[in-house]
Amino acid sequence: MSDVKKVVLAYSGGLDTSVILKWLQDVYQCEVVTFTADIGQGEELEPAREKAKKFGVKEIYIDDLREEFVRDFVFPMFRANTVYEGEYLLGTSIARPLIAKRLIEIAHETKADAISHGATGKGNDQVRFELGAYSLDSNIKIIAPWREWDLLSREKLLAYAEQNGIPVEMKHKQGGSPYSMDANLLHISYEGRHLEDPAAEAEEDMWRWTVSPEKAPDEAEYLDIEYRNGDPISLNGKALKPHELLAELNRLGGKHGIGRLDLVENRYVGMKSRGCYETPGGTILLKAHRAIESITLDREVAHLKDDLMPRYASMIYNGYWWSPERVTLQTLIDHTQKTVNGWVRVKLYKGNVIVTGRDSKTDSLFDSTIATFEDDAGAYDHCDAGGFIKLNALRMRIAANLRNKK
Amino acid sequence: MSDVKKVVLAYSGGLDTSVILKWLQDVYQCEVVTFTADIGQGEELEPAREKAKKFGVKEIYIDDLREEFVRDFVFPMFRANTVYEGEYLLGTSIARPLIAKRLIEIAHETKADAISHGATGKGNDQVRFELGAYSLDSNIKIIAPWREWDLLSREKLLAYAEQNGIPVEMKHKQGGSPYSMDANLLHISYEGRHLEDPAAEAEEDMWRWTVSPEKAPDEAEYLDIEYRNGDPISLNGKALKPHELLAELNRLGGKHGIGRLDLVENRYVGMKSRGCYETPGGTILLKAHRAIESITLDREVAHLKDDLMPRYASMIYNGYWWSPERVTLQTLIDHTQKTVNGWVRVKLYKGNVIVTGRDSKTDSLFDSTIATFEDDAGAYDHCDAGGFIKLNALRMRIAANLRNKK
Amino acid sequence: MSDVKKVVLAYSGGLDTSVILKWLQDVYQCEVVTFTADIGQGEELEPAREKAKKFGVKEIYIDDLREEFVRDFVFPMFRANTVYEGEYLLGTSIARPLIAKRLIEIAHETKADAISHGATGKGNDQVRFELGAYSLDSNIKIIAPWREWDLLSREKLLAYAEQNGIPVEMKHKQGGSPYSMDANLLHISYEGRHLEDPAAEAEEDMWRWTVSPEKAPDEAEYLDIEYRNGDPISLNGKALKPHELLAELNRLGGKHGIGRLDLVENRYVGMKSRGCYETPGGTILLKAHRAIESITLDREVAHLKDDLMPRYASMIYNGYWWSPERVTLQTLIDHTQKTVNGWVRVKLYKGNVIVTGRDSKTDSLFDSTIATFEDDAGAYDHCDAGGFIKLNALRMRIAANLRNKK
Amino acid sequence: MSDVKKVVLAYSGGLDTSVILKWLQDVYQCEVVTFTADIGQGEELEPAREKAKKFGVKEIYIDDLREEFVRDFVFPMFRANTVYEGEYLLGTSIARPLIAKRLIEIAHETKADAISHGATGKGNDQVRFELGAYSLDSNIKIIAPWREWDLLSREKLLAYAEQNGIPVEMKHKQGGSPYSMDANLLHISYEGRHLEDPAAEAEEDMWRWTVSPEKAPDEAEYLDIEYRNGDPISLNGKALKPHELLAELNRLGGKHGIGRLDLVENRYVGMKSRGCYETPGGTILLKAHRAIESITLDREVAHLKDDLMPRYASMIYNGYWWSPERVTLQTLIDHTQKTVNGWVRVKLYKGNVIVTGRDSKTDSLFDSTIATFEDDAGAYDHCDAGGFIKLNALRMRIAANLRNKK
Repeated sequence: MSDVKKVVLAYSGGLDTSVILKWLQDVYQCEVVTFTADIGQGEELEPAREKAKKFGVKEIYIDDLREEFVRDFVFPMFRANTVYEGEYLLGTSIARPLIAKRLIEIAHETKADAISHGATGKGNDQVRFELGAYSLDSNIKIIAPWREWDLLSREKLLAYAEQNGIPVEMKHKQGGSPYSMDANLLHISYEGRHLEDPAAEAEEDMWRWTVSPEKAPDEAEYLDIEYRNGDPISLNGKALKPHELLAELNRLGGKHGIGRLDLVENRYVGMKSRGCYETPGGTILLKAHRAIESITLDREVAHLKDDLMPRYASMIYNGYWWSPERVTLQTLIDHTQKTVNGWVRVKLYKGNVIVTGRDSKTDSLFDSTIATFEDDAGAYDHCDAGGFIKLNALRMRIAANLRNKK
Repeated sequence: MSDVKKVVLAYSGGLDTSVILKWLQDVYQCEVVTFTADIGQGEELEPAREKAKKFGVKEIYIDDLREEFVRDFVFPMFRANTVYEGEYLLGTSIARPLIAKRLIEIAHETKADAISHGATGKGNDQVRFELGAYSLDSNIKIIAPWREWDLLSREKLLAYAEQNGIPVEMKHKQGGSPYSMDANLLHISYEGRHLEDPAAEAEEDMWRWTVSPEKAPDEAEYLDIEYRNGDPISLNGKALKPHELLAELNRLGGKHGIGRLDLVENRYVGMKSRGCYETPGGTILLKAHRAIESITLDREVAHLKDDLMPRYASMIYNGYWWSPERVTLQTLIDHTQKTVNGWVRVKLYKGNVIVTGRDSKTDSLFDSTIATFEDDAGAYDHCDAGGFIKLNALRMRIAANLRNKK
Repeated sequence: MSDVKKVVLAYSGGLDTSVILKWLQDVYQCEVVTFTADIGQGEELEPAREKAKKFGVKEIYIDDLREEFVRDFVFPMFRANTVYEGEYLLGTSIARPLIAKRLIEIAHETKADAISHGATGKGNDQVRFELGAYSLDSNIKIIAPWREWDLLSREKLLAYAEQNGIPVEMKHKQGGSPYSMDANLLHISYEGRHLEDPAAEAEEDMWRWTVSPEKAPDEAEYLDIEYRNGDPISLNGKALKPHELLAELNRLGGKHGIGRLDLVENRYVGMKSRGCYETPGGTILLKAHRAIESITLDREVAHLKDDLMPRYASMIYNGYWWSPERVTLQTLIDHTQKTVNGWVRVKLYKGNVIVTGRDSKTDSLFDSTIATFEDDAGAYDHCDAGGFIKLNALRMRIAANLRNKK
Repeated sequence: MSDVKKVVLAYSGGLDTSVILKWLQDVYQCEVVTFTADIGQGEELEPAREKAKKFGVKEIYIDDLREEFVRDFVFPMFRANTVYEGEYLLGTSIARPLIAKRLIEIAHETKADAISHGATGKGNDQVRFELGAYSLDSNIKIIAPWREWDLLSREKLLAYAEQNGIPVEMKHKQGGSPYSMDANLLHISYEGRHLEDPAAEAEEDMWRWTVSPEKAPDEAEYLDIEYRNGDPISLNGKALKPHELLAELNRLGGKHGIGRLDLVENRYVGMKSRGCYETPGGTILLKAHRAIESITLDREVAHLKDDLMPRYASMIYNGYWWSPERVTLQTLIDHTQKTVNGWVRVKLYKGNVIVTGRDSKTDSLFDSTIATFEDDAGAYDHCDAGGFIKLNALRMRIAANLRNKK
């Protein structure tokens, strides 16, 4: 353990990573650089600076990564209509590669030889941090205290904190939040405690970002979203930066009770796990993006994307954002989005996101002169369908013939 | 056209197929057998018998196919969590192969040499009927009047009806329903007229099976669904036959404003088309089936199913139910469902289907002793994750090394 | 038929397309532009000019497309290691989109409103020509004489030729070649006649480009192929243009009895068909490209390519080269080839292409310090494998536990 | 290490596993059961019994698993035309799950609580053994000495052997074979030493099972292979058991220089590795199986299999034979083989396997009346192709129209 000189710690300022900070100083006898990122988790970051200073940290990074997070991670992912296991919008997964990238960048800037994080040994996040880090710097050392130390129970952790003068808030002494949570501009997640019984309903007071559909307004609200190259660029005609747009959608979705999800998912490390998620803005965007694609994407291109989406989602869930296969697949996805331009109207009402209209001045492949049930003035020859069907049926007719002979 | 002796017509009793009936008798000079199926479309079938008799039809088939429809078509499809283009529950598509099968069976029983249907030359249904029929009988002749005759406008059709003494109801004279509709136990669909502008919102009075979320009850309703081998078998503890169960879910879903869908889809014959659908029971089942699978299916099996689902959905959408590739894929899907046993609790509220719990006494792979955030007494060794990550990262570290050298 | 003013005919100068030329003039009463392409089929093209002149054709195009063919069609296809149904190297399929493109370009240059080709109504080529043409010009008219006229037997065709003063060579009067053939720089194909019995061996004197392995030299020949961005650029150190390189490989492969293939394939129009192919250069390139990829491509990128290859092959086989889905997939394929640089050594001997070595100075991911069976000085920690295996096994152990309890 | 009571060791009788046997007795102080399997590796097994006895082993298993190996592992795999990374026939991979299964069965029979094997920490085989074992018995303990001990160099191993009275043959003292080898009825493999430079050609005297093409007979040999349900059942009309048939094909293939392969593959544990393989019988079977499928499988079923094959191959390569996803995929594969009946004729000549004919009395979908280039008496209507093409082109024409308008 003696060969680490300087380590960059992903530091939230909370109890766990404060204990880690101290533990790294004690056990590894190395200098610690702290890195705290604003990715929209909705917490003050300056206290993290103060705490780090108290531990004698000299190099303190506090970065506002909200725009980069949404522009370079969330939006590219949404271009693929990405959901993991049919439902999960990957809110935690998509934030990790950005953190991994900054950890490595800061390590290079500060000439640190190691990074460290507070993810446990049972979860997906350790994998996402570390696969990302190794992909970006093959020589980086990684310290994952939860896999190394013996502070595996909350009691031991608290004891260590008190012994080392780490401030423990009252809530921790009282057991802390009953949930393990993670938040960023895309979502907030809940795991653990009461949720560990998948048969039991989540408690209403767990949810933090959305009102319940029951408490949402009785009036629906309509919203126009404009798309350019597959990314949303304005709401109700007002151009917004990526992170502003997502924040506004979170506000609107939260108000209307949109984006709660309760599921059992399969972790990359092998076990099933129950999680609850609030993804208000993302839930709106998923619906809206499919809608704008429905008129601007060719059928077979759309189907190709649909066929590849679960694989792409698994890459992100499993932590392979920085892998060559994810980058390769992204080139395909991005290529398809050139024509995804236009607008979508959605209605928000008590948990529902209802698409009510979509149009594209420049790229609509919806051709009403052909689709019409009315007379189409010869745009489509009904007789063509006969030949179409007969040739498509030919192989099956030959097979039926053979069965007949048997 | 002279070589058809007897034709089995898929006969609804409505105006269009009545005109077809007469037209077949006149143009093909052949005997017509009518076949009318109850697949839960919610219309009286006896009037079809009376009308057929008036046309001198001697062989009249009126079949209640509701149970077979749900048991052998709808439920097998739901085992795959099937949606076309991310959203459409395939309500029309899944009914066509059953009709095709009965048409061929009746043709064999009555020694008819042809079948006929009222699907137009622009739609998917002609393909579904005919691919099905050819797959089951390679020598069958198929008459698709809409691709043959010149009655392509509504005026000509009405004129033909009046000239031939076919009763035309007042609604038809007044322009009929503004929509082209199709209904069965799984759904009701709307196309045409106002919907041909994909930018325009569907009118509220179009929807027939569901109340709007706004008008749904203010009280949520909980529902327990029990699964055996991947199929739902009881509601709130009450065992129901497949079609009874789906009908009851339609009632509940309709009451709570569940299952409306408005989308632009890609037809197999090549154009985009806007459709609106109400699938109240199916929407509940899709959510519930994913939930019971989430605890009873192995991760990789679930992902294999997810990867293949869009392809399976396209097979059904495009009319390949009776193809060898669909049957082949079904063997895989059905094999996976042996362990899909247990129950799911859903909450129905104003358009929302919210999964609140799921459990399986016999087949749950959710292992709380391993998933727990608490101490797991050694069930899982955190250190294993280090090796797991390092080997998964190895190929990317080698690549990063190479980039470094450049 | 009266509304065609000018038609561009894909004209080989042979009997069939000469009859078509005359037939178009007679039946459509329109001006004909002839287009004859050199894509390496190994025939003189000037006679086509003379014949066209005799028919009074005023606009005669004779183009050398060999370089474009190999550079923009063959090589991009080989980047994906493309084979249809496990074996067929798509020699005919890949030439059609180029012909379609030139037909449309010439139609635009000459202000023609239609194109015509000599492909029959049973084959894949009509589909490839026409899908290509429609994709490039939605308004083009297409005349496919074999689907229109009544000259469906060879006797009628010859009679028509003689009546119209079209020169018929002695070989045609004697029944012509027993095979339907197609040739270009990538391959020569044989179909029909003796081959219509898939149980019967092809006759030795059918093959034209390759000697039999038995007659090939007793001495093996080694060949170094250099790759840049996935394309071969030199042979034995000598830089060659794409079409020169392929021609040279054909010579070498033909000399060593390489590239014969005898198979039954599934046509897009629905029937099975037996074909024999000689693809000497392509057979060498397929092996060599896989070899250079084996050391320069990441594992998961290579697997992604392998998973998508059959779909890509079907796109080309079915005539969708100019479709948006093929273009989309090509962006992915081309992206992966940036690192495919280096050389491959193959040994050619009596029908065998044997890879004996491969290396890349710049992009090899083969790391002998890690792969070695010898001591690796700690480059790889054997213990990591334990954790890797345990986490990968976890879901199966949980399942085994459950089975135990039952 | 004290908690193992009895361990079943996969024991070859060679130096490495003899050292392991002794090491297990010394270090784990536990009883050792030896298991030696005949899977066609071509070595005497009785010496292994003698050696085991000398070490005081009381429970010695020596099993002839050749028939089971070919019938239940090799043949099912060949039903999918399985190759890993386009070329490797998975000879080593497919033997491991059988060994894993027997290790667990013997553990249960002898009430052993652990198993052990001699696979190294860098290779795929440890993964295959252990994933298999854990899947079959979630509580089994696994001892992988190569990941535990410090005998990582050949010198240390020899020293340990001599210190412990383990007989060391002269060849080991002289450095042993320059290659790491593995053999069974499907193949023999070579890795290591000279092969660790992928640019260098394998030495001719490395190959053991096949003559070089140069030394193969100058006369070709024809061979008829009969298939039932996708498996070969007779050669030249003589019915043979699975393992007899494969052995005979190995003899024939070896004689004709068939089945050598030299490649760089991607290991599951993350690095690239160069391997050489001889798979004479398997190489013949791969060609022949594709040929019988070419006339008996529906096109779309064949394409579905082709699309899934690389995934299936990875499952086997990576050690997931006993996983639920492999079993699931096998149900699909096996379902498709019901119609794969008939015979294939292949010509063997100096490294070439040339299919010259194929037929199926009962299941051929090759319909010469439709495929013919001659007059087909109306079996196929050429005009159908026009409609087929037009509808397939429709979406691309609409897109071209849109581009025109821009």
